[in-house]
Amino acid sequence: MRVLVWGENVHEQQNPIVRDIYPDGMHSTIASGIAEDGDFEVKTATLQDEQHGLSKEALEVTDVLVWWGHAAHGEVHPEAVDRVLSRVWEGMGFIALHSSHYSRPFMRLMGTSCSITWREAGEKERLWVCNPAHPIVRGIDRYFEIQNTEMYGEPFAIPTPDEIVFISWFEGGDVFRSGCTWKRGNGKIFYFRPGHEVYPIYYHPTVRLVLRNAVRWARPAPGKWIDSCPQIPANEAPEPLTVKGPRIHKEGEEGFR
Amino acid sequence: MRVLVWGENVHEQQNPIVRDIYPDGMHSTIASGIAEDGDFEVKTATLQDEQHGLSKEALEVTDVLVWWGHAAHGEVHPEAVDRVLSRVWEGMGFIALHSSHYSRPFMRLMGTSCSITWREAGEKERLWVCNPAHPIVRGIDRYFEIQNTEMYGEPFAIPTPDEIVFISWFEGGDVFRSGCTWKRGNGKIFYFRPGHEVYPIYYHPTVRLVLRNAVRWARPAPGKWIDSCPQIPANEAPEPLTVKGPRIHKEGEEGFR
Amino acid sequence: MRVLVWGENVHEQQNPIVRDIYPDGMHSTIASGIAEDGDFEVKTATLQDEQHGLSKEALEVTDVLVWWGHAAHGEVHPEAVDRVLSRVWEGMGFIALHSSHYSRPFMRLMGTSCSITWREAGEKERLWVCNPAHPIVRGIDRYFEIQNTEMYGEPFAIPTPDEIVFISWFEGGDVFRSGCTWKRGNGKIFYFRPGHEVYPIYYHPTVRLVLRNAVRWARPAPGKWIDSCPQIPANEAPEPLTVKGPRIHKEGEEGFR
Amino acid sequence: MRVLVWGENVHEQQNPIVRDIYPDGMHSTIASGIAEDGDFEVKTATLQDEQHGLSKEALEVTDVLVWWGHAAHGEVHPEAVDRVLSRVWEGMGFIALHSSHYSRPFMRLMGTSCSITWREAGEKERLWVCNPAHPIVRGIDRYFEIQNTEMYGEPFAIPTPDEIVFISWFEGGDVFRSGCTWKRGNGKIFYFRPGHEVYPIYYHPTVRLVLRNAVRWARPAPGKWIDSCPQIPANEAPEPLTVKGPRIHKEGEEGFR
Repeated sequence: MRVLVWGENVHEQQNPIVRDIYPDGMHSTIASGIAEDGDFEVKTATLQDEQHGLSKEALEVTDVLVWWGHAAHGEVHPEAVDRVLSRVWEGMGFIALHSSHYSRPFMRLMGTSCSITWREAGEKERLWVCNPAHPIVRGIDRYFEIQNTEMYGEPFAIPTPDEIVFISWFEGGDVFRSGCTWKRGNGKIFYFRPGHEVYPIYYHPTVRLVLRNAVRWARPAPGKWIDSCPQIPANEAPEPLTVKGPRIHKEGEEGFR
Repeated sequence: MRVLVWGENVHEQQNPIVRDIYPDGMHSTIASGIAEDGDFEVKTATLQDEQHGLSKEALEVTDVLVWWGHAAHGEVHPEAVDRVLSRVWEGMGFIALHSSHYSRPFMRLMGTSCSITWREAGEKERLWVCNPAHPIVRGIDRYFEIQNTEMYGEPFAIPTPDEIVFISWFEGGDVFRSGCTWKRGNGKIFYFRPGHEVYPIYYHPTVRLVLRNAVRWARPAPGKWIDSCPQIPANEAPEPLTVKGPRIHKEGEEGFR
Repeated sequence: MRVLVWGENVHEQQNPIVRDIYPDGMHSTIASGIAEDGDFEVKTATLQDEQHGLSKEALEVTDVLVWWGHAAHGEVHPEAVDRVLSRVWEGMGFIALHSSHYSRPFMRLMGTSCSITWREAGEKERLWVCNPAHPIVRGIDRYFEIQNTEMYGEPFAIPTPDEIVFISWFEGGDVFRSGCTWKRGNGKIFYFRPGHEVYPIYYHPTVRLVLRNAVRWARPAPGKWIDSCPQIPANEAPEPLTVKGPRIHKEGEEGFR
Repeated sequence: MRVLVWGENVHEQQNPIVRDIYPDGMHSTIASGIAEDGDFEVKTATLQDEQHGLSKEALEVTDVLVWWGHAAHGEVHPEAVDRVLSRVWEGMGFIALHSSHYSRPFMRLMGTSCSITWREAGEKERLWVCNPAHPIVRGIDRYFEIQNTEMYGEPFAIPTPDEIVFISWFEGGDVFRSGCTWKRGNGKIFYFRPGHEVYPIYYHPTVRLVLRNAVRWARPAPGKWIDSCPQIPANEAPEPLTVKGPRIHKEGEEGFR
C-alpha cells in the first residue's frame, strides 16, 4: 500500500497559528497519522514541488492519494488535475479532506459545485456513524467528537453519495454529511470533513484512525483499466458483418476527442 | 419551455456527405424535430457564434440545452463550459447526443473518462426500452430500430446512471447503454446515443419523439438554487454560540475558492 | 390528484393523550393538511376498514398513498401489502411517515431492516434542507423547527436514498436522515420523519406544507407499466431464430413464480 | 471463506433432461465450480433439507450464500426468507442465479417485481464486460459467450444497480442486464443471469470463473452490525437534556415492530 499525502502547504508558511500547530506542515502530520499502520508506505508532496509532486511517474506508484488544500486551489495546474483524474479512473483511491471540497480534483470528479455553508467559531462537532459495519468506521463506537472546529453546514452540493458514513451534529445547530463515498471509473473516493487548519485536528486519535481505515478501504483492486476508445474494425466484429453505407473515419483511425 | 440546440457545425461545413444530409446543419434538423411539439420555443446556437452562443444571458433564458459535438470538442472555450455547468446546477436540463459523450460539458458533469468502443459499418441498431413507463419512452413500444448506424459498445465509462432508459443491440454483436439519466445539482441530464453524422438519423421519427420526450422530462422544477458558500456569522447560528479559539477568516469574509 | 391517507388508528382509540390531540384520528388531521391544496382529492382509510381500505379497487384510483402506522404493523394483512407494492411498481406514489419506517409496505420496498435509534424526551428538532431547489422543500428557507418531538437517530438502516431532502439536528445531540427519496418500479417513495403521536405535529404548518409538496412530487407519470414476465415465442424474436436444443417450457406457457 | 450453495433440487428429480446433465443436482455442480478455488470451503443445501438447510446456525457460519431456484419459489418458508435477509443485513454475501430473479430472498431484497421477458430457443448469448477492472470479471477479456441458452430480455424490473458488470447480447435480438450488484445493509448482492437448467451451463469454465470471482467479491467485511432499534434514555443523550412533554413509551421499553 503506497500512500501519497498531498498538502497545499500555504497556511503553514503564512499564518503563525497554523505554523505553531503544524511546524512540519499539515501534510507531515496527516502522513504520520496514516503511517501508524506499519503496512503503509507513506510519502508526501506539496504545491511547491516540481509538478506539485504529481508527475505521471509519482502517480503511477501511488495506490491512494490523500488531498488537503484550501487557500490555493486555483494554483494547481490543470494538467496535474488531469493526471490525478486519469489515475483515479484506473483505480487509485482519492481521499479529499475538509476544505478540499473545493479542490480542483474533487470538483472535477464530482461534476457539481461542491458548495457548503460555514462558520468559524471553534464550536463542538459530533460525527455520527451511519453504518456501524462500514470498513471506514472500524474501531469507532456510535460517534466521536471534536471539541473545537469550524462548522460546515448543509446544503452540501454533491452528487448523491454511494454511501454516507458520517453525519455531523454541530453545537451551533447545523448538520453536515461529513463522510461520503463515491466510485468514479475504478477509483474509490472518500470525502472526510474534519481538518480546519487553526485547530490541531490531525492529531486527534479518532481522526487518524479514520484516515487509516479510509486508506485501506480505498486501495485499488488488482485489475487496471486504461481506457482508450478503440475503433473495432468491421471484420473483427463478434458477428459476421458487411459494411453498409458511408463512413467518416478511415480504418484504424482514432476517434475525435 | 425554452430549448437551445447547440451544434458544433463543423462536419456540415467540411464533409459533403454530411452537408447533403443536413444542408442547414445538424442543429437545425434536431431543432425542427423538437419543435414538432408546439409548446416548445426552440433556438439554435453553434461553435462559430460569439461565445459559441452560450453567453450568460442566453443560458439564463434556456430551460433545456441539447448538445451535439464531435470533431471540435477541444475548441469549446473553458469559460463557456463553466457557464453551462453553472446553469445545469441551477436546474437547466442538459441532453448530450451521440459523440457528445466526449464533449467538455458532459465529461465535466460526469467526472469520468466517458470512453466507449466504436465501429463505423452502417449496421443495424435496436434500442430496447428498459422501463416502459419512463416519460422519455412515452409512445414507444418494446423497442425501436435504426437501420444503418455507427456502433458504440461497452464498456461505456460513466458513473452509474440514476436510470437506464435504453440499451442497444447491434447487428455486429455489441451492446451499449444508449439512454441514461443523471442529476447534478438541480439539472437533469440525459445521454442519448443515436446520431451519427453520415446517416440521416435526426430525421427518424422515433428519434425525434425521444428528443421531445427528453426535453419535457428535463425541464427544471420552478425553484432555482444559486449556491454561494456563505459564511454564517456566529451570532446568527440557530443555537446560542460563544466563539472559542482562533480564526483564519474575518467576519463577513468570503471563503477561498 | 387522488390521495389516500392511511392511518393505523390504534393509539387514538387507546391512549387519551393521542385522542385529545387527534380526536378524529391522526389520518384525518394529516388528510386535512394535504387537502389545504384544493387540487387534491383526499380520502382516508384505516386498519379497521374492510381490507384495511386497501382493496384493489381503492388502490387503482389512488395516485399517492400516505401511510402512518406504529403499534400494529404486524396486523396489516400480507395480501394488502402485496397490493400496495404492485400499485407502487405501476406508478403510485408512497409516502411513509415517522414510525412507518417499520411498516410492512415500507420495509418491503426498501429490502433492509429500516432500524433506527430513538429517545422520547420532547426535545427540539431542526430539519435542514439539503437541496434548496427540490420540489419537496418549496416554500421553506434553510430549515424549520419542531419544538417538542421524539428523537430518531442514526444509523437508519435504509438503502442509499436517491436524494436526501432533510437531515435533522436534535437538541439531545443526535442527527437523522429525515427526508429521503427512492424509486421502485415506477413509484416514487418519500420517507418523512416528523409525526410522533403524543405531540400535535401534524398541525405544524411547515410539516403540512411538506406533505403537500411531497404528494405533488410523488404523483405518477401518465404511463403505467403492468409487468407480466411474458414468454416471447421464438418466431416473434426480432431476429430470425431457429430453435436449438431442449426446452422445459411449452410454447405459450407461463413462467414459474 | 465459507460458501453455502442452495439449490431448489426439483427439476433434477422430475425432468430427465436436467437429471442427465446434473445427476448430482445443479447445486453440486455449482458448488464444484466454486470449490475449484481451494481457499473456499463450500457446502450445499436444498429445499428438501430440514429448514431448507437454512437454519440460523447454518447461516451464521456462512459468508456467502449462492441461490438457485425456479419451480418452487413459493415453497420456501417465509421464516427461512427472513433468516436469510437478516444475515444479508449483517454482512453475508448473496448471489442469485438465473431464475432466482423471482426467488423470495432476491425479491425481498430488491423491493421490486423483478420481472423479465424470456424465450427458450437454445440461442447464443454474448455477455459483455461493462467494467474491465471489476473484481467479478477478473480473467475475462471483453466478453464471453454461451452457445445455447434461454433468453432473458429487458425490461428487468430491478432497482437501479450499484454497478452493472455484464450486459448480454442475444442471437434473437434482445439484451439484458446479466450481471448487477447492490448492497443492502452490509451484505453485497450479485445477480448473475446464466444458468438455464436444460443446458450444461454450470460446466462452462467462464461461468465457473465468474462464480468464484463473485464469491470472493461478496465476502463480508470483518465488522458485523446486528441492529436492534434501541431506546436511548434521555439521561444518556450526548447533550444534557431535560425531558419535556408526554411520553408513550416507558423507560427501557422496546419500540413497536
